[in-house]
Amino acid sequence: MDYRGIFEDAIDALRVEKRYRVFADIERIAGHFPRAVFRDSADNAREITIWCSNDYLGMGQHPAVIGAMQETAGKLGAGAGGTRNISGTNRPLVELERSLADLHRKEAALVFTSGFVSNEATISTVARLIPDCLILSDQLNHASMIQGVRQSGMEKKIFRHNDLDHLRDLLATAGKQRPKLIVFESVYSMDGDIAPIEAIADLAEEFNAMTYIDEVHAVGMYGPRGGGICEREDLMDRIDIIEGTLAKGFGVMGGYITANKAIVDAVRSYAPEFIFTTALPPALCAAARTSIEHLKVSNVEREGQQRQAGRVKRVLAEAGLPVLPTDTHIVPLIVGDARLCKAASDMLMDRHNIYIQPINYPTVPKGTERLRITPTPYHTDDMIAELCDALISVWQALELQRDFDMSKLMENKLVAGDLTLPTVGG
Amino acid sequence: MDYRGIFEDAIDALRVEKRYRVFADIERIAGHFPRAVFRDSADNAREITIWCSNDYLGMGQHPAVIGAMQETAGKLGAGAGGTRNISGTNRPLVELERSLADLHRKEAALVFTSGFVSNEATISTVARLIPDCLILSDQLNHASMIQGVRQSGMEKKIFRHNDLDHLRDLLATAGKQRPKLIVFESVYSMDGDIAPIEAIADLAEEFNAMTYIDEVHAVGMYGPRGGGICEREDLMDRIDIIEGTLAKGFGVMGGYITANKAIVDAVRSYAPEFIFTTALPPALCAAARTSIEHLKVSNVEREGQQRQAGRVKRVLAEAGLPVLPTDTHIVPLIVGDARLCKAASDMLMDRHNIYIQPINYPTVPKGTERLRITPTPYHTDDMIAELCDALISVWQALELQRDFDMSKLMENKLVAGDLTLPTVGG
Repeated sequence: MDYRGIFEDAIDALRVEKRYRVFADIERIAGHFPRAVFRDSADNAREITIWCSNDYLGMGQHPAVIGAMQETAGKLGAGAGGTRNISGTNRPLVELERSLADLHRKEAALVFTSGFVSNEATISTVARLIPDCLILSDQLNHASMIQGVRQSGMEKKIFRHNDLDHLRDLLATAGKQRPKLIVFESVYSMDGDIAPIEAIADLAEEFNAMTYIDEVHAVGMYGPRGGGICEREDLMDRIDIIEGTLAKGFGVMGGYITANKAIVDAVRSYAPEFIFTTALPPALCAAARTSIEHLKVSNVEREGQQRQAGRVKRVLAEAGLPVLPTDTHIVPLIVGDARLCKAASDMLMDRHNIYIQPINYPTVPKGTERLRITPTPYHTDDMIAELCDALISVWQALELQRDFDMSKLMENKLVAGDLTLPTVGG
Repeated sequence: MDYRGIFEDAIDALRVEKRYRVFADIERIAGHFPRAVFRDSADNAREITIWCSNDYLGMGQHPAVIGAMQETAGKLGAGAGGTRNISGTNRPLVELERSLADLHRKEAALVFTSGFVSNEATISTVARLIPDCLILSDQLNHASMIQGVRQSGMEKKIFRHNDLDHLRDLLATAGKQRPKLIVFESVYSMDGDIAPIEAIADLAEEFNAMTYIDEVHAVGMYGPRGGGICEREDLMDRIDIIEGTLAKGFGVMGGYITANKAIVDAVRSYAPEFIFTTALPPALCAAARTSIEHLKVSNVEREGQQRQAGRVKRVLAEAGLPVLPTDTHIVPLIVGDARLCKAASDMLMDRHNIYIQPINYPTVPKGTERLRITPTPYHTDDMIAELCDALISVWQALELQRDFDMSKLMENKLVAGDLTLPTVGG
């Protein structure tokens, strides 16, 4: 039996489709973000600028955050020492969960080791505990939410992305008596668009459905205290479960949910992904909590991010580059071809010391391949000018398309209707 | 629709079955492990001794490990900043994977955020990639392996725990032509017993099966360089995929696999749990690598653990306490009843400042409820004497049973044959 050959063939298939991924070996430099040291395949090092970080606010290099991590490691050690039940529930983790519950004005919070696990564990466990639960899932939900839906084993219906009429139809067909769970995101990270949260909450109320929102691309960044889009729009109490991450806006690592005590206690008690996993190290918890508490009272980072994201959009659009319009900090630049997208990314790194990884199928639909740019408060005006010059040069060298019909691109996406499509992150 | 009531009922069901879990709020004290500060429900703090940590060798408090974490956080920041593909592949993570591949003498390694995720992602992805794969899974495999098996959607057969005849029957029935994956553990953490690895590898060879072993309760602790039971028995090259954790013997956090390049590259490229998760922070990677490299050359910790574990077994057995005999560092003390097990644990904490959480169903079969003791090199002879006195006192106060027929207890387990039984960790 040629097992090795099977795996080699699976890899070759990705190469043929031009979606084999090579990870860039990066060494961030605390205090100099978004600058970093890149090592090429020959192990030669040089300095580059990262334009695709999910450390959206640069909190991963904030001195108070790093200081909390170092101090807590010194006092409490490197790891948690066990699962939550077996000696792993550490004091900084208890305090972190309190800080998160407060952030979203919920009764309780539960921390996981990643946003992926928090989505998978919570959606599958919650849906399984509700007899005959029907899950209504936005078509562009993240891979981790799709996995949670599947793993629940419950019936699911996919509604077209952000399409309230379609969602209403599905809710009405299911009827008010049947238990239902609506799962969706606030900010969709590849297109940077925002869900009609209030209208979805209204529908949920009308049809007696529970609501679950993924705010991973919003927490820390939106709302007066960084509570996300739901906080900004004063809707936190209208959503049953708010899920977020400690790894993006907050700059550390881990995922979480906040909800009422009964829901959190049920997930804590029934989700194997939670029960059988070592707790987050105290040093990470302390760092995350410091970041959250800082962003509850500081707007400098949020304002800086919005200002520089707006500047990038304006400068690139004025240069005639195909920027997909968004209402958020995410700046997608459409290439529309997997091979060319990879080539553009490589050229940016090789010739211009600029790192933006290509986003190809299946992360985005074919024909919408893109460079996804995420400006932070630490990207200076000079860096933006350099980025624009580099992109113009790459667009010329590779003869890339500039004139996409953006609304048509997005329309095409809407008919895909494929739950198997992982949409975000990788 | 009373959703809250549904979750409250689910919680109440656990209370009725005496398996509602209350997490102990613990603050470890670096440099004084296994001593820690415990906070009770009224938030009163006092010092206790932890006897149930999975930081088996105390590496979580090793000065070099903590130092690496602090230094790397200071240089590179708190988080990784993205998924592996999106700017998250950091230099210490690349170095950590090299260190792990070297530890197990494999071509490559891949790091995940937890052992749970490494099992779920790898087993499901590998089995899915092999056409018509039949999974043969040990009856007592960990919940994360069971989840990986299920999630693959492939056919599975459960073999009785460590039962070579049963495994041979299943392999023979499937035939040599059909692709097969045998998944099992080296050290089973609740009973502390060890799989017949060489015989399983022989069977795999005879019937053309792939092999996957979980060594999470062995890495760092067995083998001349801490490569686990497979290293100790010189079998690393006979197992296709070795899975391990950074959170137990190595004292930090995260999980990993090591295998040939094709397998690792396929999992890296196809597993959504890996692709869509933020990378492990550089500081954790540096800490884990320091711990691994230390244990490659230092035997002091391994010898100390075995010495003190042997002493605990001897002292408790001499005192007439019902110790389940094991060949490993794990010392299960049988109580045999969920309510009494919880009461014994509470009494140890309340009266004796000793922390050993109760292990009840479904982590272990009903009737085998236990206190699971994990002596480390840092548990002194005096602490062992105190532990023994405290246990004698608790056994008397609660009139707990002393005379179990241990071989019968284990037999009962063997007929359970229930794949839904999560066996380890929570």
